Amino acid sequence: MIFRRPSFVPSFSRFLQFSSGFHKPAANAGAPSTHGIHVFHCPDEVGIVAKLSECIASHGGNIHSVDVFVPDNKPVFYSRSEFVFDPARWSRDALENDFRKLGKLFNAERSVVRVPDLDPNYKIAVFASKQDHCLVDLLYRWQEGRLPVDINCVISNHDRASNNHVIRFLESHGIPYHYLPITSGNKREEEILNLVADTDFLVLARYMQVFSGRFLAAYGKDVINIHHGLLPSFKGGHPSKQAYDAGVKLIGATTHFVTEELDAGPIIEQMVERVSHRDTLESFVQKSENLEKQCLAQAIRSYCELRVLPYESNRTVVF
Amino acid sequence: MIFRRPSFVPSFSRFLQFSSGFHKPAANAGAPSTHGIHVFHCPDEVGIVAKLSECIASHGGNIHSVDVFVPDNKPVFYSRSEFVFDPARWSRDALENDFRKLGKLFNAERSVVRVPDLDPNYKIAVFASKQDHCLVDLLYRWQEGRLPVDINCVISNHDRASNNHVIRFLESHGIPYHYLPITSGNKREEEILNLVADTDFLVLARYMQVFSGRFLAAYGKDVINIHHGLLPSFKGGHPSKQAYDAGVKLIGATTHFVTEELDAGPIIEQMVERVSHRDTLESFVQKSENLEKQCLAQAIRSYCELRVLPYESNRTVVF
Amino acid sequence: MIFRRPSFVPSFSRFLQFSSGFHKPAANAGAPSTHGIHVFHCPDEVGIVAKLSECIASHGGNIHSVDVFVPDNKPVFYSRSEFVFDPARWSRDALENDFRKLGKLFNAERSVVRVPDLDPNYKIAVFASKQDHCLVDLLYRWQEGRLPVDINCVISNHDRASNNHVIRFLESHGIPYHYLPITSGNKREEEILNLVADTDFLVLARYMQVFSGRFLAAYGKDVINIHHGLLPSFKGGHPSKQAYDAGVKLIGATTHFVTEELDAGPIIEQMVERVSHRDTLESFVQKSENLEKQCLAQAIRSYCELRVLPYESNRTVVF
Amino acid sequence: MIFRRPSFVPSFSRFLQFSSGFHKPAANAGAPSTHGIHVFHCPDEVGIVAKLSECIASHGGNIHSVDVFVPDNKPVFYSRSEFVFDPARWSRDALENDFRKLGKLFNAERSVVRVPDLDPNYKIAVFASKQDHCLVDLLYRWQEGRLPVDINCVISNHDRASNNHVIRFLESHGIPYHYLPITSGNKREEEILNLVADTDFLVLARYMQVFSGRFLAAYGKDVINIHHGLLPSFKGGHPSKQAYDAGVKLIGATTHFVTEELDAGPIIEQMVERVSHRDTLESFVQKSENLEKQCLAQAIRSYCELRVLPYESNRTVVF
Repeated sequence: MIFRRPSFVPSFSRFLQFSSGFHKPAANAGAPSTHGIHVFHCPDEVGIVAKLSECIASHGGNIHSVDVFVPDNKPVFYSRSEFVFDPARWSRDALENDFRKLGKLFNAERSVVRVPDLDPNYKIAVFASKQDHCLVDLLYRWQEGRLPVDINCVISNHDRASNNHVIRFLESHGIPYHYLPITSGNKREEEILNLVADTDFLVLARYMQVFSGRFLAAYGKDVINIHHGLLPSFKGGHPSKQAYDAGVKLIGATTHFVTEELDAGPIIEQMVERVSHRDTLESFVQKSENLEKQCLAQAIRSYCELRVLPYESNRTVVF
Repeated sequence: MIFRRPSFVPSFSRFLQFSSGFHKPAANAGAPSTHGIHVFHCPDEVGIVAKLSECIASHGGNIHSVDVFVPDNKPVFYSRSEFVFDPARWSRDALENDFRKLGKLFNAERSVVRVPDLDPNYKIAVFASKQDHCLVDLLYRWQEGRLPVDINCVISNHDRASNNHVIRFLESHGIPYHYLPITSGNKREEEILNLVADTDFLVLARYMQVFSGRFLAAYGKDVINIHHGLLPSFKGGHPSKQAYDAGVKLIGATTHFVTEELDAGPIIEQMVERVSHRDTLESFVQKSENLEKQCLAQAIRSYCELRVLPYESNRTVVF
Repeated sequence: MIFRRPSFVPSFSRFLQFSSGFHKPAANAGAPSTHGIHVFHCPDEVGIVAKLSECIASHGGNIHSVDVFVPDNKPVFYSRSEFVFDPARWSRDALENDFRKLGKLFNAERSVVRVPDLDPNYKIAVFASKQDHCLVDLLYRWQEGRLPVDINCVISNHDRASNNHVIRFLESHGIPYHYLPITSGNKREEEILNLVADTDFLVLARYMQVFSGRFLAAYGKDVINIHHGLLPSFKGGHPSKQAYDAGVKLIGATTHFVTEELDAGPIIEQMVERVSHRDTLESFVQKSENLEKQCLAQAIRSYCELRVLPYESNRTVVF
Repeated sequence: MIFRRPSFVPSFSRFLQFSSGFHKPAANAGAPSTHGIHVFHCPDEVGIVAKLSECIASHGGNIHSVDVFVPDNKPVFYSRSEFVFDPARWSRDALENDFRKLGKLFNAERSVVRVPDLDPNYKIAVFASKQDHCLVDLLYRWQEGRLPVDINCVISNHDRASNNHVIRFLESHGIPYHYLPITSGNKREEEILNLVADTDFLVLARYMQVFSGRFLAAYGKDVINIHHGLLPSFKGGHPSKQAYDAGVKLIGATTHFVTEELDAGPIIEQMVERVSHRDTLESFVQKSENLEKQCLAQAIRSYCELRVLPYESNRTVVF
């Protein structure tokens, strides 16, 4: 299996307004108040936190939150910092450069900074098939301002009538809906690549087609999928039916990065719910749909907040 | 795979005092106050509940709780009733006979009644290997009166010194500890069968040996196992390590009936807990141990309360 | 405090299609296949289950599910049965009469039957104020067919523009929206009584006005409210702020029946979520809103499925 | 209400071996491998993280984990760092001095460092009354090496016979058991102060007596209590009965710091479990006892790991 390494937008980082837990400093005249997020991932050595925080402090930035993680048994370093600064004193370009230089200094795999008030939103494409509960849930959260992305388009292998509520919603918001029926003979991956060329990552919201390794390599950026089963149990199709037949007492959903291997990429988030003998296959499915919506939205939010980092070959750090 | 059908003690049913939720009637002079539990499992037809409840009422029994379940798509009937009665009016033998006759009438797979105040406790044997957390937890609950069984003996393929706290505990309670080292060449199943001949069911409390189909057929009664993984994920050995490597965000434990196929028998109970990148393999194991204790104890209590019934080929009804 | 006793529609019971867990019998020619639900609440005595089930069986009805509950310390009886029958053999009127007679026989507080395929939907009015997350969630579930009610109207003390998405949704479904600004001098309860006269129950979906005892007595039917706090903590206004200031580590939502006493009626459902020092008042509110939606919807579904019954003076049985 | 500010041992910090999640560095010849924890709490300003981390790095210390928290609306700074160092290069005394100086530099309310391998254990006294489930659970965890403390003594207002299993356990471990019957006329607080003079903090494990403000002021160190209710609901006595009568669907336990005001000090941890109409007062109590054990143990572990810090007047940061 080839681990598709998560790649954030290489040059100008993006960050978007998000609603949970971001610190707004007290309203003090002259106090720096532009928020920044920095994530760093490099081989571990003495002094990284010192250098990173000194960099921020030397430009008048004030750190509000830091998460640092160095695993037990491996000399790798992960950090995620939130800070406030004054762009008049530390410009967006300087910010970018300073963190890039720190990245070079420590041979970082990743040194990425984002400034929500200045950077453009993430651009995404959302893929769906016939089941639209995840898609609808994402669209509603997006409309509420709780999904900090721009939705370039929705792509589906399932046709929807012009009076379908999803179609009307997308039209009213000027978001294209591309109906691309897929056959085993024609995966139309070239077309899809063109449609998503300008995106930062893709969201598969119960999209039932599988991307080839060639597509994933060509796209080169992250693809997030919701699987309606508690991986690694119940990979593939009809996981609710598989779970039902297995007689489990807990069912779940899993959000993960897509790799060449089906339902096997690094896991970002998982959620469970209880089932019993009284549950029918129908209620298994309903409970699963409820979990899928929450699990996918939670993972996307964490991802947009730069909380998700690759860890070893098939795992994630989620700050 | 042969589904090992759960078998309760065939003739005189046993029931034991249990502490959770059993209804004690108001203290009324002359009111029936001996508790009984009846479980029934037969092909579905019209009138079963009527006949069962009429039987109880005609003898002055008062029903306090009933659970009935007929699956969507299969004409089978399950019920579990709790009632109070006066043994002076409805003797233990008559009770037994009346429910046996109802069982015949409806071609029941199971018609079992138990009376806690009159019947002997379930007799069990507990198996453990080196890890003793589940064993110790069971012994403590048993001492507290919360595990309604008699423990005939503890059998282990791991030797323990005479000053080991488990050994001293068992000695002080007169419970034999049998050290039976197992090799692939000598499974000693004949000896084990002799040691457990007088039990009603077996509990494998992190016992790392696998019983053969021959043993299970010869024993003929239920064997309950705790698997330290969320089945059907992570069957076999080192499930915590498997889970750790898989990068899951939830780990779990599963209690199930033992069948010939490893870690594949009907599931009784499952429990989960969250893990993150900050968890080490050691903390995975600790969290798992905590879940295993609760999951095994919960399943055994449900089993002793006659809440667990076979459902289709590999599932359970747990009232 | 006066306990507002839940009252179901007195004469012809209503029942509506609901999606979770209802048994559909195997497709057998001639097998009864119309579903019925019966709830019964009376003083306890010997033989109730026998009589109820005999009544059903004598008309060819087949019981699929029964829940019976007789509390420890009080001789009261509760049951909820699901059964299938053939209306050609047991007409809707006969069904009604037979259960009414049983109600008389046992001096029942309640003997109510519902037949989803034959009875009209519950009619409700939904009340909201400025916060619309619960209202929107209910409308979406209703549109999905998961809220088995007819929505007569939405009443709000908050004005909404004609292009507001809620207004447009209601218009497209022909549901009136009544804007009734309330002042302490003018509670407009007469108008409201007229608007809701034809409803079976009311849903207060974050409605910030308080009904008087006079209104509740005049309306006479159930009023279900969602309180955005874990009762009995944090009654009254701004429970999220109260919880935030109290430094709790868990916040919750509570659905309950409305009585004269504010936030004190019988509790139907409660849900919690963790919070920490990293949560701001804003994230407390967001987490709470998520809980409120789920908690209110769950309680309404249970109520429509006849699972909720009054228990003692201020509690509920929720089967 | 006077907020009893948590006070850690002033001079030489203590730290004890704990099992969950502490990073052990790879076994590299010459790599620093002594673990340290530092917590810092001061008014916020630019450059604190830089100074703290520079201090550690300049002595060859390698940071493995950092949590930093600056609240939204208040310029206060909290951090907790875990690092490894070489005592040959950075002695325990130098470590202490360097962090004390940093504390002075930033006007810190708290600058505390602990080194598990070098510092003595926390010394505690445990208080219990008649209910011993929490006490027994703590003793068992302590025996297992999972409660990183020395237990100076157990103090109880309830007498226990010499063959009581708690008494025998304490005797076998050389831990004194002091039976101090309390009356409203004689709180014996002077005696208690003497008995606990040499402790670092106190644990009230379902101790039903209330310390006076005078006692708390005289003792001057932290007192941690488990309340068997979900504060701020159900303060005072019989919270299980209060919850049962209130008809709640969730019950909980709360661990908190003790202040003069009963059951009102800063909350450290809370846990809940579901209850229903089927729960009796007895099962409410059993479920509560299970929660109390877990909630108390979790809070004590967090406290020993320096994860708990005072936040505003009545809240806690729990890293």
